[in-house]
Amino acid sequence: MNDAIIKQHVYEANMQLPKNNLVKLTWGNVSVIDRDKGIICIKPSGVPYSKMRPEDMVITDLDGKPFDNQLKPSSDLATHVYLYQQMDNVQSIVHTHSLHAVAYAQAGRDIPAYGTTHADTFYGPVPCTRSLTEAEVATDYELNTGKVIVETFEQRQIDPVAIPAVIVNQHGPFIFGTSLKKAVEHTIILEEVAEMAMKSELLKQDMNTIDGFLLDKHYFRKHGATAYYGQ
Amino acid sequence: MNDAIIKQHVYEANMQLPKNNLVKLTWGNVSVIDRDKGIICIKPSGVPYSKMRPEDMVITDLDGKPFDNQLKPSSDLATHVYLYQQMDNVQSIVHTHSLHAVAYAQAGRDIPAYGTTHADTFYGPVPCTRSLTEAEVATDYELNTGKVIVETFEQRQIDPVAIPAVIVNQHGPFIFGTSLKKAVEHTIILEEVAEMAMKSELLKQDMNTIDGFLLDKHYFRKHGATAYYGQ
Amino acid sequence: MNDAIIKQHVYEANMQLPKNNLVKLTWGNVSVIDRDKGIICIKPSGVPYSKMRPEDMVITDLDGKPFDNQLKPSSDLATHVYLYQQMDNVQSIVHTHSLHAVAYAQAGRDIPAYGTTHADTFYGPVPCTRSLTEAEVATDYELNTGKVIVETFEQRQIDPVAIPAVIVNQHGPFIFGTSLKKAVEHTIILEEVAEMAMKSELLKQDMNTIDGFLLDKHYFRKHGATAYYGQ
Amino acid sequence: MNDAIIKQHVYEANMQLPKNNLVKLTWGNVSVIDRDKGIICIKPSGVPYSKMRPEDMVITDLDGKPFDNQLKPSSDLATHVYLYQQMDNVQSIVHTHSLHAVAYAQAGRDIPAYGTTHADTFYGPVPCTRSLTEAEVATDYELNTGKVIVETFEQRQIDPVAIPAVIVNQHGPFIFGTSLKKAVEHTIILEEVAEMAMKSELLKQDMNTIDGFLLDKHYFRKHGATAYYGQ
Repeated sequence: MNDAIIKQHVYEANMQLPKNNLVKLTWGNVSVIDRDKGIICIKPSGVPYSKMRPEDMVITDLDGKPFDNQLKPSSDLATHVYLYQQMDNVQSIVHTHSLHAVAYAQAGRDIPAYGTTHADTFYGPVPCTRSLTEAEVATDYELNTGKVIVETFEQRQIDPVAIPAVIVNQHGPFIFGTSLKKAVEHTIILEEVAEMAMKSELLKQDMNTIDGFLLDKHYFRKHGATAYYGQ
Repeated sequence: MNDAIIKQHVYEANMQLPKNNLVKLTWGNVSVIDRDKGIICIKPSGVPYSKMRPEDMVITDLDGKPFDNQLKPSSDLATHVYLYQQMDNVQSIVHTHSLHAVAYAQAGRDIPAYGTTHADTFYGPVPCTRSLTEAEVATDYELNTGKVIVETFEQRQIDPVAIPAVIVNQHGPFIFGTSLKKAVEHTIILEEVAEMAMKSELLKQDMNTIDGFLLDKHYFRKHGATAYYGQ
Repeated sequence: MNDAIIKQHVYEANMQLPKNNLVKLTWGNVSVIDRDKGIICIKPSGVPYSKMRPEDMVITDLDGKPFDNQLKPSSDLATHVYLYQQMDNVQSIVHTHSLHAVAYAQAGRDIPAYGTTHADTFYGPVPCTRSLTEAEVATDYELNTGKVIVETFEQRQIDPVAIPAVIVNQHGPFIFGTSLKKAVEHTIILEEVAEMAMKSELLKQDMNTIDGFLLDKHYFRKHGATAYYGQ
Repeated sequence: MNDAIIKQHVYEANMQLPKNNLVKLTWGNVSVIDRDKGIICIKPSGVPYSKMRPEDMVITDLDGKPFDNQLKPSSDLATHVYLYQQMDNVQSIVHTHSLHAVAYAQAGRDIPAYGTTHADTFYGPVPCTRSLTEAEVATDYELNTGKVIVETFEQRQIDPVAIPAVIVNQHGPFIFGTSLKKAVEHTIILEEVAEMAMKSELLKQDMNTIDGFLLDKHYFRKHGATAYYGQ
């Protein structure tokens, strides 16, 4: 995959965010890693989607150092880089401020697994991180955002492929995938299940989460060796 | 109706789901039965709507066995087949994960009949099934989904033509019709009345359901021998 | 205004309903009266908006008797006719099942006047009628719907030009105007203020209604001899 | 900047309001001030967006007196003029009746700063003014709307560049910017954070506002000498 092709793919993935009403203005970013070639490609910082071109995507090395003569990368780059370093099986990362996922972030809550729509993609509740401390915000904020995400997955013993999203407390979601296509699909689904969960709670107090065996059934209908969904 | 024509009709019916914002990505499926010709036609499994073509629709016999050289049918086929076998007067079935219908499913609640919009199409509350047991999920899950739907209509003595939809607990809606066109219309209306019902409950605690005589009036204004709505 | 022109205008007004997401499928209807020519023109019954043509509009006399060789008029015609007979200053009527207005109907509640958006168009709360009795539903239902609307305006001493809409209990809104254009505008605004009112109540329990002097100010900024809004 | 150019820019900014679903019909208005040339340019009163042309924009002097042979300016002009006179660093003002911002206005509440989406643009809660008194509404209503806005910013010691929006009690939002572009962007963001805040409260009672150090971090990531977001 040469640079023009990877930039084209990352551009197209980023353009899915406004198309699916998951971001406003210049918000959000999608990146991909090519571990063999040793590069990361990410959206530039603060460029409106309507004016963004494929060649504006920014390529960096695996430490997040951009190659010369490019736009400035997304200000969230350091978060992406740390996550790629710590999560071997994640090949693409999305960050949005989609409405209902942010509402859960602002409430500091996990998105509970209430039904099969959730279970088809997320093998359990989408975790919400703890808040960052004042020290973590003051220095290396974006790096520390990555660290609190990794801490959350490690402490809860969650595989980011099995539950490919996280809610950063007071902030918003980061979404993972084994490919650009998967990461963007998970981003669309995350916002949908967040709205479904909120509205379920409006319909019933003290909601029950999905039966464990039904969560298993739907997740493994679509994932792993026993999957039988799709062509 | 030859195969190309039935596939075209089922394709067009399926395409109404994303057009009316009732599904995301590859979710949902519409099928039709031709009892005289002994065939069922259904959407293929896991194909994005944007890439789906009429010829991708899958035709099976009345036991759900696909004829040769076709794509894999929807993973929910076994549910459709069982419902067609048990419900003689149903000729088309739709399954979606539309947002407000799913919220009722996740809350494990019937959609109450609160007003005439509901009564024009559904002659009473849209029932929510019991949850499936662990054994029912473990083996023949899709078949058992059909069975719990039929059980619900039988135990409550509901005619699936009079109330042409059901909410599967923790999952989402299945919708019925005496034709593809009717089934898709009922799908659009189900999501609308689900949102109306949820928002009515936000406006008033301890909602009353619609007066029985008004339910009768609106339902029979549009259905049966005394109907006088339409041309 | 000859028949082709009035039909064209009524057609265009009806087409604003799906365009503004105020109806689904074949729902809703708009009519206009020409008291000098002695005619009423209304949408036909049960025709999908996508297939409706200007010549499909139905012209009747002032008693609601359609002239020959036309489609069947809206099943709500008798409601419109009675309202035109009783409300001299109403020249156009709209009926929809718009989502938030229906939610208020199902909750059996007036739409309170909470702010200036409401006051710019509605000079006080939009009233909700009492429910119809079983006898009123059994015989001459559509006529009795008109009667309960007129009863509501008379008992509360409301002028349907000053508050050009009403919520029929368990059903939905009817909207008035001194012209087709005004009636459709009021229909758009009614749905917007209904959603605003519902969401205001989510933000604050025991909402206060708008100060009377601010209601006056905004209503008379746009209406009557002292109006100074617009060109 | 000659008159045709400023009118074109103000026209384009106004057209962003319906495009972003922030206004209905003829609602809302955007203005800009050119302090050097001594002119203000604002939307005309009561003209539908679909029929509005760039040359319909109205240019006035710094006291809000329109030059000859133009349409009538927005009825909210006096509010804009007073705000420009009192707020030296504001160069553009927007007024809308966007849904969730109005819900906060009708509830008489500030929009709390619950997360980083808010903090990226608004350096603290978006203030809600007190209600106007009967005397303030009776005489010079639009001027007094400007005065209660300025009073709010002064009493709370808020800089309208740091928190570029205000909610007028029982009415709706006014939004500020150092340019037309910024003012419109802030208008889009205000409605989004209002909806996020409302929905966060549905997910959690007794919401906490964002940590002060995180508010600082996100605001100053995008604003001031230490900003590092964007190109």
